[in-house]
Amino acid sequence: MNTVDKPYVVGIDIGGQTTKMGIVDTRGQVLAQTVIRTDNHDDVNLYIDEVSAALEKIISESESEGKIRGIGVGAPNANYYTGNIECAVNIVWGGNKTIPFAKLLTEKTNGLPVALTNDANAAAVGEMTYGAARGMKNFIMITLGTGVGSGIVINGEVVYGHDGFAGELGHTCAVRHNGRLCNCGKTGCLETYTSATGVARTAREWLEMSDEPSSLRSLDVISSKDVYDAAKEGDRLALKIFEFTGRILGESFADFVAFSAPEAIVLFGGLARAKEYLYQPIMDSMNANLLPLWKNKIKIVFSQLKESDAAILGASALAWEL
Amino acid sequence: MNTVDKPYVVGIDIGGQTTKMGIVDTRGQVLAQTVIRTDNHDDVNLYIDEVSAALEKIISESESEGKIRGIGVGAPNANYYTGNIECAVNIVWGGNKTIPFAKLLTEKTNGLPVALTNDANAAAVGEMTYGAARGMKNFIMITLGTGVGSGIVINGEVVYGHDGFAGELGHTCAVRHNGRLCNCGKTGCLETYTSATGVARTAREWLEMSDEPSSLRSLDVISSKDVYDAAKEGDRLALKIFEFTGRILGESFADFVAFSAPEAIVLFGGLARAKEYLYQPIMDSMNANLLPLWKNKIKIVFSQLKESDAAILGASALAWEL
Repeated sequence: MNTVDKPYVVGIDIGGQTTKMGIVDTRGQVLAQTVIRTDNHDDVNLYIDEVSAALEKIISESESEGKIRGIGVGAPNANYYTGNIECAVNIVWGGNKTIPFAKLLTEKTNGLPVALTNDANAAAVGEMTYGAARGMKNFIMITLGTGVGSGIVINGEVVYGHDGFAGELGHTCAVRHNGRLCNCGKTGCLETYTSATGVARTAREWLEMSDEPSSLRSLDVISSKDVYDAAKEGDRLALKIFEFTGRILGESFADFVAFSAPEAIVLFGGLARAKEYLYQPIMDSMNANLLPLWKNKIKIVFSQLKESDAAILGASALAWEL
Repeated sequence: MNTVDKPYVVGIDIGGQTTKMGIVDTRGQVLAQTVIRTDNHDDVNLYIDEVSAALEKIISESESEGKIRGIGVGAPNANYYTGNIECAVNIVWGGNKTIPFAKLLTEKTNGLPVALTNDANAAAVGEMTYGAARGMKNFIMITLGTGVGSGIVINGEVVYGHDGFAGELGHTCAVRHNGRLCNCGKTGCLETYTSATGVARTAREWLEMSDEPSSLRSLDVISSKDVYDAAKEGDRLALKIFEFTGRILGESFADFVAFSAPEAIVLFGGLARAKEYLYQPIMDSMNANLLPLWKNKIKIVFSQLKESDAAILGASALAWEL
């Protein structure tokens, strides 16, 4: 590791709405960071222009010109092997295209090497290095954000699979018949129920289907944050929405456990902040659906890292290996 | 590897009904083999007495007295880390007990070292070494026998997970609501629909539910082999049973692909002989449920190894590492 001349790396976390980036040193300190919109442009080239402009700014702020070793990027549908982003339906400039993201970003940053992985894989690396999964060799990271992502760690290594795209657990089937239509084109995907947008969708559906009183009825547009705030105020419908969300997560988690027998499932992302409403329903339904040998043995852990830090740190960890 | 003094290993494959065992040399030749019933005794000690008697016989036949390096065992619910068989509900001497199988077998065989793994993991190793998965680093082995087992290979290594029990895909949920009751105590498990017993169960249910004519109606007891034979004669109900079975397998396989992005799913076991009736429904429903990035890219491969050989060879491969 050339840490004398080039002691810093860049970590970039690309979400459907925002892109977080930071300059990180060898001890995992974030020296400078910033956030830009991901969804300002349909054209990825214009987006990358904004990324490189924002990077220049924080590089200058942290006086790290010429000291950057490389860039690690966590992004939905990113391929670790090829450096491409493929079919990223939750990103406005993604769609059904194959975008040579690593190549484009290297060109815009005067030749800095770029490593790319799934945003959830990056978060898993961050969690394993600095967070709740420290010391764990086998765990599954589930990110509950705009979509539902996953990073699977087996024997201390992130699973990339044959083609580099392993770990799309948000698109496993949670509801087999008459399931909700997903952005990916399938129906019943886990993320249509248990992402932040899924929770908001449940709220809208349930408000329409029933006339149960709820403070959510007064809102024109409902976000998962609104449902969380209502739950905190004791709104019964909001509480039931989290119970339903937790139950679906737990059912799916039981199947994930049957696959890789992890020590824990680590939850991360905006919706994971609703820990007090999600934990018990997840535990109950997961244990009800686990084989006897796993009942009450699998931990559900909520990330304690600051969301922005974990994603940036995880992405940046990739860059040290460049 | 001490192959001069001890040039042979023993491979034992334990199924719900039969136990196959063989003496294997360094080139993977099965020098002698035999089969005994697994289900003659409720007491594992009596069963192990029969195993060791049968072993003595084939050791003597192959003139390999004193030349056996160790024993590799493939068994349901076997723990690679501990050498125990735990909660093996499909085995009469299994049940909800923890059986220190490796220890018991070592004691009965004058101290021969014993390594144990899931029967499906053993089959996966056999398939990777000698069969359809040669050269593959990422694949999922699915065994369609009395139950449904699985062996998951990632980066060329069998996945054991945190506790040694990874790869119980037969007990992932195929039918979420009103699913069939499984031996494991859960409902809707994949193996209740797609094992040999699951296929027979479908036949019995469908014959009762409808009055559709079928040659199967003349039978008192229906096995999956009967359904297969009827399908070969063009029996429409039997053909529909395989279509249904293949569809459920394909739906589940799509979720497995989202986990580890394998190059192929390899099918093995008695029911996999019905390749001509299962292949197309599996492919159709798997592709209908895959993310766009995987559509038409994942291979479904049927094992070409003789079933007894693959299991014995796979189990025996473990013993070389002892």
